[in-house]
Amino acid sequence: MAAELKELTKRSENYSQWYNDLVVKADLAEQSAVRGCMVIKPYGYAIWEKMQRQLDDMFKATGHVNAYFPLLIPKSFLSREAEHVEGFAKECAVVTHYRLKTSADGSGVVVDPAARLEEELIIRPTSETIIWSTYKNWIHSYRDLPILCNQWANVLRWEMRTRLFLRTAEFLWQEGHTAHATREEAEAEALKMLNIYAEFAEKYMAMPVIKGVKSPTERFAGALETYTIEAMMQDGKALQAGTSHFLGQNFAKAFDVQFVNKENQLEYVWATSWGVSTRLMGALIMTHSDDNGLVLPPHLAPIQVVIVPIYKSAEQLAQIDEKASGIVERLKALGISVKYDNADNKRPGFKFADYELKGVPVRLVIGGRDLENNTVEIMRRDTLEKKTCSCDNVESLVKDLLEEIQGNIYKKAYDYRANHIIEVNSYDEFKEKIEEGGFLLAYWDGTPETEARVKEETKATIRCIPFEGDTTPGKCMVTGKPAARRVLFARAY
Amino acid sequence: MAAELKELTKRSENYSQWYNDLVVKADLAEQSAVRGCMVIKPYGYAIWEKMQRQLDDMFKATGHVNAYFPLLIPKSFLSREAEHVEGFAKECAVVTHYRLKTSADGSGVVVDPAARLEEELIIRPTSETIIWSTYKNWIHSYRDLPILCNQWANVLRWEMRTRLFLRTAEFLWQEGHTAHATREEAEAEALKMLNIYAEFAEKYMAMPVIKGVKSPTERFAGALETYTIEAMMQDGKALQAGTSHFLGQNFAKAFDVQFVNKENQLEYVWATSWGVSTRLMGALIMTHSDDNGLVLPPHLAPIQVVIVPIYKSAEQLAQIDEKASGIVERLKALGISVKYDNADNKRPGFKFADYELKGVPVRLVIGGRDLENNTVEIMRRDTLEKKTCSCDNVESLVKDLLEEIQGNIYKKAYDYRANHIIEVNSYDEFKEKIEEGGFLLAYWDGTPETEARVKEETKATIRCIPFEGDTTPGKCMVTGKPAARRVLFARAY
Repeated sequence: MAAELKELTKRSENYSQWYNDLVVKADLAEQSAVRGCMVIKPYGYAIWEKMQRQLDDMFKATGHVNAYFPLLIPKSFLSREAEHVEGFAKECAVVTHYRLKTSADGSGVVVDPAARLEEELIIRPTSETIIWSTYKNWIHSYRDLPILCNQWANVLRWEMRTRLFLRTAEFLWQEGHTAHATREEAEAEALKMLNIYAEFAEKYMAMPVIKGVKSPTERFAGALETYTIEAMMQDGKALQAGTSHFLGQNFAKAFDVQFVNKENQLEYVWATSWGVSTRLMGALIMTHSDDNGLVLPPHLAPIQVVIVPIYKSAEQLAQIDEKASGIVERLKALGISVKYDNADNKRPGFKFADYELKGVPVRLVIGGRDLENNTVEIMRRDTLEKKTCSCDNVESLVKDLLEEIQGNIYKKAYDYRANHIIEVNSYDEFKEKIEEGGFLLAYWDGTPETEARVKEETKATIRCIPFEGDTTPGKCMVTGKPAARRVLFARAY
Repeated sequence: MAAELKELTKRSENYSQWYNDLVVKADLAEQSAVRGCMVIKPYGYAIWEKMQRQLDDMFKATGHVNAYFPLLIPKSFLSREAEHVEGFAKECAVVTHYRLKTSADGSGVVVDPAARLEEELIIRPTSETIIWSTYKNWIHSYRDLPILCNQWANVLRWEMRTRLFLRTAEFLWQEGHTAHATREEAEAEALKMLNIYAEFAEKYMAMPVIKGVKSPTERFAGALETYTIEAMMQDGKALQAGTSHFLGQNFAKAFDVQFVNKENQLEYVWATSWGVSTRLMGALIMTHSDDNGLVLPPHLAPIQVVIVPIYKSAEQLAQIDEKASGIVERLKALGISVKYDNADNKRPGFKFADYELKGVPVRLVIGGRDLENNTVEIMRRDTLEKKTCSCDNVESLVKDLLEEIQGNIYKKAYDYRANHIIEVNSYDEFKEKIEEGGFLLAYWDGTPETEARVKEETKATIRCIPFEGDTTPGKCMVTGKPAARRVLFARAY
């Protein structure tokens, strides 16, 4: 096992393999017996729970409530909204039967042909259709609006090529589905939630993001606008970390959801939907981690501090236990999650490597000399720097250090991104620079044809039309036609 | 809407209809467009979230961690464990295809026959099989044990007759799956979790339960022992509120999960599983609620206190607002969840009825005279008693009252149950008394034949062989054969 810890592929050798190694070796997730579906292991799930809790608090603080809608959707619902069916209905798991029976030879079970469903059911790839069919019964008057529901759920999209967290057939996510009386309110809601995602990404994941709007081609199927936050991974590729959709009245029309407005007139309801998923786990891993393993932001680390004793005798261990338990108490009193690992079946060197692999932000080591001197060795995971300091008041030092690490890894990611965003002014330059990775700001004529050509020829897509930055008009790098402003291109996960 | 609030069927008229009415009218849940699958509405989900949070804390405090395993299970897995397949594999949703395509006439979507799965996948009815196929890779040595995993998930069993919360095709639950090195440790774990369920039921749901072991007929498919907590509803019927299973080595053998023990010998792993589900919502509703609506235990009420103003002018309302906001702050400071409802589009009478329907434990009303006298009217939902008291220190009065209500509704349920458990000594007496509802303690000869006959003739089942109570041997009420002790019979949900 100790040997295995060393076998993480280096990022410089093979970034993709490094990621796969890390997810498995840090005990975050693994492939299951079902193609494309992952098992999220306890350590990985603990990080996801921290994300969930924080996002859930932020949703509730902005007036949202949770609910739960069915896993299964009648097939016919998917074709109600014309664009939606094109985007979603195709690669889905289809339930056709509701019973098995013992096989004729008694050796196993077979599908009972007599138990065929009249209408097939689809495992939700997203829940707009089933939710809007429900909202029809909830909404009659403007007094019933807004509805601000969120759902934490599993969804399934039959992906051909899967990667742990980044693209799996089944994944966990939250999907907000809101209903409003006016266009303005719905648009404001979609932007509000995008801002919450950005705040979460930056303050908790320590991951800088660029906010913007998707090109029509990249819109969610059925949306009028899709807003996105885009993050840069350490290989310079983009990762779409969250999206928020202004759906207009499309789903209300598809499911005939009308309300009586204040002027006593019937009107279709305005909608948004927004979601982030376990894909954020992939983003978190790829933003900060290094060749020694995970680097977790303190705000999301399940274990923020680990304390490891180094001892020569049972007597000495007893003394360290006592010293450590005092520190544990003081750290806990400050709301810091701490683990004291005095397990005697693993050597300190193994523990050090393992907690580095797991990305625990701060490690304290107490040895014999520390006992004599009333000191403790502190190591920070982000820089691997060590220093020795007094045990007295170590808790406030650790508390400050955790915030410092949170800030430092954000800054590191921010600086990396700043160094890998460039403006390019010709398509030749674009084709050259895209090979180096990073985000390219370039002029685009606004047509899907040009967008498709760039994608075909360079594998780069328009990540978004950023909300901020240079808005000077120019000329399309490909066609020379007028371009409203520079947009953000990158190769993406 | 105000009219609707009055239309709750009385329990004495039709208990079953009362329950259905209440679930829908109190905005807890409703039927969906998919047969047997419910929508859990925000207010119902908020109660479920409180339950989840509390249970999750209790699981973690006893060393358990959360993880996530796939929704879909290969069909062949279900037949690995012989008894398990008989109990579970039959009424399941079966995924046979992974793609839809546009229909020939372009009007909708149809299943793409080319996208047929080689092996059908089953939506999990419970996860023992997929989890033990995973544990095989996690467990090699005694050092890898115990594994103490829990999962919060949706599961699906194709039920023919469904009722909101009590029996639905899809439901939400938690399922713990633990792996141990010894039989003793696994047995102790199964009992530990049963005790946690009992503690949760009694302290949080205010629902007394009887702990015991199931008869072999009623065991979970694949278990060596199934432990249960049984609660009595207000109609005298039993509701199985949670089960914990000692699985022996059955699943380890089915999935070949062996470990090297301390003596360096290969041995099969010992297992438990345990779960509670959204069925607890049904139990909660039926234990305490009355003809006016829900009665929620304060420990699980999403809103513990509601404050309603009664005013004659905007000026008076402003004064009440100010008074109320002080009380809100003081209640919140004590950790009490409180809602101040000064919405002007509903009259106080409507609000009173609505919050009674929703089971908010304490209602405070502030009117003009209260302003003059610095008083507030307090109503407790459980007894509907009102009294007027000073605003000063009302928060500590409310805090005490919430605990008093929690204790009172537990006692009420406990007394009801005590008055509806009787010992019966002949089968004639049994047949007579079972018509009156309640739990019957009777002698049973221990055979499945007698158990089946009683069920066939009276619709009563053995709920459990209780851990506590009279253990004197006797003679079977049906056959006269020797009986080890009295067991608990009832008609059940």
